[in-house]
Amino acid sequence: MATTSQAAVLCAYNAPLELRTYPVSSEPAPGELIVRVEMAGICGTDVHLWKGELPIPIPVILGHESVGRIAQLGAGVTRDWLGAPLAVGDRITWARSIVCGECYYCRLKRQPTRCLARKAYGISYSATESPHLRGGYAQYIHLRAGTSLFLLPPTLPTETVIGAGCALTTALHGLERCSITPGDTVVVQGTGPVGMAALAAALQAGAAKVVVTGGPTHRLEAALGFGAHAAISIDEYATPQARREAVLAATGPYGADVVVECVGHPSAVPEGLELCRDGGKFAILGQYADAGSVALNPHTITRKQLEVRGSWGFEPRHTALAIQMLDTTHWKHKFAAQITHRFPLNEVNEALDTVKNWRSGKAVLLP
Amino acid sequence: MATTSQAAVLCAYNAPLELRTYPVSSEPAPGELIVRVEMAGICGTDVHLWKGELPIPIPVILGHESVGRIAQLGAGVTRDWLGAPLAVGDRITWARSIVCGECYYCRLKRQPTRCLARKAYGISYSATESPHLRGGYAQYIHLRAGTSLFLLPPTLPTETVIGAGCALTTALHGLERCSITPGDTVVVQGTGPVGMAALAAALQAGAAKVVVTGGPTHRLEAALGFGAHAAISIDEYATPQARREAVLAATGPYGADVVVECVGHPSAVPEGLELCRDGGKFAILGQYADAGSVALNPHTITRKQLEVRGSWGFEPRHTALAIQMLDTTHWKHKFAAQITHRFPLNEVNEALDTVKNWRSGKAVLLP
Amino acid sequence: MATTSQAAVLCAYNAPLELRTYPVSSEPAPGELIVRVEMAGICGTDVHLWKGELPIPIPVILGHESVGRIAQLGAGVTRDWLGAPLAVGDRITWARSIVCGECYYCRLKRQPTRCLARKAYGISYSATESPHLRGGYAQYIHLRAGTSLFLLPPTLPTETVIGAGCALTTALHGLERCSITPGDTVVVQGTGPVGMAALAAALQAGAAKVVVTGGPTHRLEAALGFGAHAAISIDEYATPQARREAVLAATGPYGADVVVECVGHPSAVPEGLELCRDGGKFAILGQYADAGSVALNPHTITRKQLEVRGSWGFEPRHTALAIQMLDTTHWKHKFAAQITHRFPLNEVNEALDTVKNWRSGKAVLLP
Amino acid sequence: MATTSQAAVLCAYNAPLELRTYPVSSEPAPGELIVRVEMAGICGTDVHLWKGELPIPIPVILGHESVGRIAQLGAGVTRDWLGAPLAVGDRITWARSIVCGECYYCRLKRQPTRCLARKAYGISYSATESPHLRGGYAQYIHLRAGTSLFLLPPTLPTETVIGAGCALTTALHGLERCSITPGDTVVVQGTGPVGMAALAAALQAGAAKVVVTGGPTHRLEAALGFGAHAAISIDEYATPQARREAVLAATGPYGADVVVECVGHPSAVPEGLELCRDGGKFAILGQYADAGSVALNPHTITRKQLEVRGSWGFEPRHTALAIQMLDTTHWKHKFAAQITHRFPLNEVNEALDTVKNWRSGKAVLLP
Repeated sequence: MATTSQAAVLCAYNAPLELRTYPVSSEPAPGELIVRVEMAGICGTDVHLWKGELPIPIPVILGHESVGRIAQLGAGVTRDWLGAPLAVGDRITWARSIVCGECYYCRLKRQPTRCLARKAYGISYSATESPHLRGGYAQYIHLRAGTSLFLLPPTLPTETVIGAGCALTTALHGLERCSITPGDTVVVQGTGPVGMAALAAALQAGAAKVVVTGGPTHRLEAALGFGAHAAISIDEYATPQARREAVLAATGPYGADVVVECVGHPSAVPEGLELCRDGGKFAILGQYADAGSVALNPHTITRKQLEVRGSWGFEPRHTALAIQMLDTTHWKHKFAAQITHRFPLNEVNEALDTVKNWRSGKAVLLP
Repeated sequence: MATTSQAAVLCAYNAPLELRTYPVSSEPAPGELIVRVEMAGICGTDVHLWKGELPIPIPVILGHESVGRIAQLGAGVTRDWLGAPLAVGDRITWARSIVCGECYYCRLKRQPTRCLARKAYGISYSATESPHLRGGYAQYIHLRAGTSLFLLPPTLPTETVIGAGCALTTALHGLERCSITPGDTVVVQGTGPVGMAALAAALQAGAAKVVVTGGPTHRLEAALGFGAHAAISIDEYATPQARREAVLAATGPYGADVVVECVGHPSAVPEGLELCRDGGKFAILGQYADAGSVALNPHTITRKQLEVRGSWGFEPRHTALAIQMLDTTHWKHKFAAQITHRFPLNEVNEALDTVKNWRSGKAVLLP
Repeated sequence: MATTSQAAVLCAYNAPLELRTYPVSSEPAPGELIVRVEMAGICGTDVHLWKGELPIPIPVILGHESVGRIAQLGAGVTRDWLGAPLAVGDRITWARSIVCGECYYCRLKRQPTRCLARKAYGISYSATESPHLRGGYAQYIHLRAGTSLFLLPPTLPTETVIGAGCALTTALHGLERCSITPGDTVVVQGTGPVGMAALAAALQAGAAKVVVTGGPTHRLEAALGFGAHAAISIDEYATPQARREAVLAATGPYGADVVVECVGHPSAVPEGLELCRDGGKFAILGQYADAGSVALNPHTITRKQLEVRGSWGFEPRHTALAIQMLDTTHWKHKFAAQITHRFPLNEVNEALDTVKNWRSGKAVLLP
Repeated sequence: MATTSQAAVLCAYNAPLELRTYPVSSEPAPGELIVRVEMAGICGTDVHLWKGELPIPIPVILGHESVGRIAQLGAGVTRDWLGAPLAVGDRITWARSIVCGECYYCRLKRQPTRCLARKAYGISYSATESPHLRGGYAQYIHLRAGTSLFLLPPTLPTETVIGAGCALTTALHGLERCSITPGDTVVVQGTGPVGMAALAAALQAGAAKVVVTGGPTHRLEAALGFGAHAAISIDEYATPQARREAVLAATGPYGADVVVECVGHPSAVPEGLELCRDGGKFAILGQYADAGSVALNPHTITRKQLEVRGSWGFEPRHTALAIQMLDTTHWKHKFAAQITHRFPLNEVNEALDTVKNWRSGKAVLLP
């Protein structure tokens, strides 16, 4: 095992990430483990973090979607989250957040995604604090005691896991909170990774028809390849009113049973409310970063008798669900094919750039 | 039985209602009935209608909260909604809306409050069309075939039924959609009739603590009399931030499990989202009229992982539930005492004025 | 149009059905219509009715699963349940039950399948009462005002609709009450029509794995063809204990998230409880007829913290859902291929016999 | 602090408990604490354990309902389950079970009451294993690391907490799983501690009417004192049919919306199914011990379209809920008055005897 690891570090917002070198521990503490990162996804959230849209303790090694092989196991780390035995060399992924299990939200209100003490790899750890290597944009990562580890089945390619990324776990959590009933008509706003994952999750849950809105063209084609019944271009239908007409032409005149917002821009929210049928459901998944306010008429929510649900991140059990779903013939190759761009670690800024400019399906680092 | 009936008619928005005289049919059509109105509530919605904030076919005889005695029964009208036999002279109330039972919303989506063909007494019927008398601000009302009728138990005073009004059925429907779990901490925004009813319904559902925000002082005192654990004056705490601090001092630092908006002003919506604990629920009941847009940050809904539900009107079964709840020792007198102002029909404009200016608890007409 | 119609009538329990001739009305009453039956399914319930296991007013023309073409429309019958216009010659199916919409169960408790006044074609109508023709085992059927009619899309073969039969609507209702979460492991007990439909509905709802128990061999093969992950023979695994071991080998050691009983024999119920994981769900769909009691230890339900749900029949909206599901490439041919035996009306007793003796997939009459 | 503690030990089924003396540690291990027991409830389950109806590792110090004062705190025990600081001398109660948080049921299926590694004080710990003192029938109890501790508010009497006992947490969990909707009509079968607690919890949740069946007379009177609308004697109405008629006279002809079985005898289960209205819910709370099988007709569950739910024990959050509910004027004294018999530790067999023979409301030990 190497004694040092390169890592790509966000040192200043809106400035290029810097490559730095940190020591790799030769002996992980009890409960901890060291993983050689094989692939790390560039998530849209990384772009938001890079822009400074969420409060984080920079310098931070980014990267919260990773697959790697166990390099060293600390004392007591013997099994994964589902009970499978672990050994050096095993290929694993892990939940990005560790929750305390003891606070008001964990215990009394059973909302572990809102744990008061939660910390996420690649987001919440300062690279200045030992052991430094707490993000996926690096050759090695040190995982803390209590991390939810998942041994990957040999049948499941790394490309599939990273091609789905945290978008799929986010979508599975979001649709769990805004459940699809078999036969439902669904609209997904947005054709980025979360939108694609929401489309897949909706089809998996028995949606009879899924209509997506988004762009650019290569993303709309990808959505049709995933099984969307119609893909409406936001370039071609350039106004909310034009998009509404195009959506209703596909859903029927009353709108969709469930609308899933996966855009990220606040304006998608009032637009989405108008795409729901009366009595329908609206999942807000895209507003993970704080992109500001929008004018919204709450009379719409009352008059249409809507149910609107936010969903923050996901729990470890959604990672287990995602692995189960991805390891099927139907989804395995579709999600792997999401990866359109591969970069070595020292081209991290080029990688971030393809995501920022919507050029890629999914871009990944191979550290 | 009289052959004519006086009625108070909304002929022009923001202008005084006019007293007009209409013929009373001597022979109701099959399925219809004629009722001598004994008491009609002035609902806050009537003020919104008078201001032209909802699309209605004026001239309209207002009045959708009424109790009266059966004057004449058409052929085939033999039982109330729950199966009790009906006779001339019986004291009844009725659901304001008739739904078709056959449209997309009634049949397939089971959202009867959003029936495509629904019509409401006192709101949706033009007074120019025979038989004219389709509102409660009148001596007589002609009820259509298919109206959900409710025989009132002799133990239940008319004052209690009208004191609760459509506010209670609105609150019961709203809280059904945003259910209270026993032990919950609840915040009710607003101390008008809907707020008071939501407070009562929350306590009835086992809320451990209900905090209200509103005013003026006589309404806050009424809320404490209903069982609120704290009543926060919007005059004393004049900013959303000041109110938030006062509410959290009462609920605990994380906010309420359920917040119920019963204000009507759009600004109450973003304010209410900040009063929910993470993972909490937010019922929007007050935005029945279209009072316009407000700046709202949808990131709040995602980050706090909220569940937001609108609720439109109510179904006949909520009237049955309200009658059951009101006919108990605990609530009977509290709701009757809500009535602070009584007017004859020819003082209808003074009555509307007390409601418009928040001077009354509940104002009623005795036609 | 013919002036008389042959019909197969259950005149005495456990005795051969008799062919009788009834007049066909030349002029249906307002709201009624007359349909030329093209295909009628033999349902397992018909065998139970023939054995006298449910209270019915014999003589009865059996047949509650039918497709036909409109022969004559009474006044006012202009649209199907979903609003599509209807004309003579149109191919339709219909919900077997009419509910009153006015009783305690329809109105207050929203349990229309338990309507106090419900009546089902082919089950609840005496053939001695005019207009006699109220069952599907006949050339013509007279449908009452208020029947839920469904125009069939030209893309949906009659064989598919009858191949699915009331089994699919029963399964859709049952699984709606015991909802499948995407990723669930499901066990279906029974490989008759209801079991096959439950298997299809579970897959459609996103079940990750469905294990069936049943027989004989041709049914197990059909289940694998529908997508079952394992099919366990009740002949090969002849005891509940042996079957439990075989099921757990397929589901994992804790059992299934959801078990769906589609057997009909009471002994399947205690057996099924032992196939659920702790905290799992158990849908009882197979006990439509009263087949008597079984020894059951309720401590199992407490200790395993189970959720057990019965489901009675279905509502018209489940017929709409079934048509939507069947009219897809995936299911269209699978359900049509369920039909293995076709009989003319005068061979009705042979048809009933193939069902009684589990020789057929699905047997149908072509009257 | 004493160096030894007396304890009442179940050494052989159906034989008198023996008083034994064990050492009290002078220094609890990190995370552990030692509590001086002030009051221990005799639960009906203790009688079942004494009869050998559940598998336990005798010899066992019984007692899983206790209040005591902290005698010594191990390192790191600084706060209770809700975050309140703890000190020697504080009066506390604690959840009887510790769950692992890591197994299939804890993690993936979120059914912590079915934790594969759970152990309960007074039930699952052998008295032969150090530190021996793991039950409440003793002067001192050693609590393990990970025990959910609850500081009692000074306003909440010990008698109230033990008067409610694990019956209230059991009922709160059970009714959470079979939720009461405000306005529901409820039947509670059984007037032992669980029945009384279910009655209280149903009223708290907004039940409009609660009817109990049970006995003897002093228990029926206690139920009426708690707020039951009718209390039906199983002595006076000696057959299921007679009881059904008496219950329906009180509930109305269709039966109850929710029936809660709190009897413990298997025969209560088929009897209870017949007390539900069609489409109603049935909670099985009384079958904690394995009291054998009963003849049950599953056709009833299908035909009546019932929802049946078992519930096993409770989670720590139900103890928090119970404390919140008990610390109200309404319930504080009612539950304290449940305690009718008090015994010193050396009269433990007399205490057990009063419970076994249904002579007491609630019997307690004062060790």
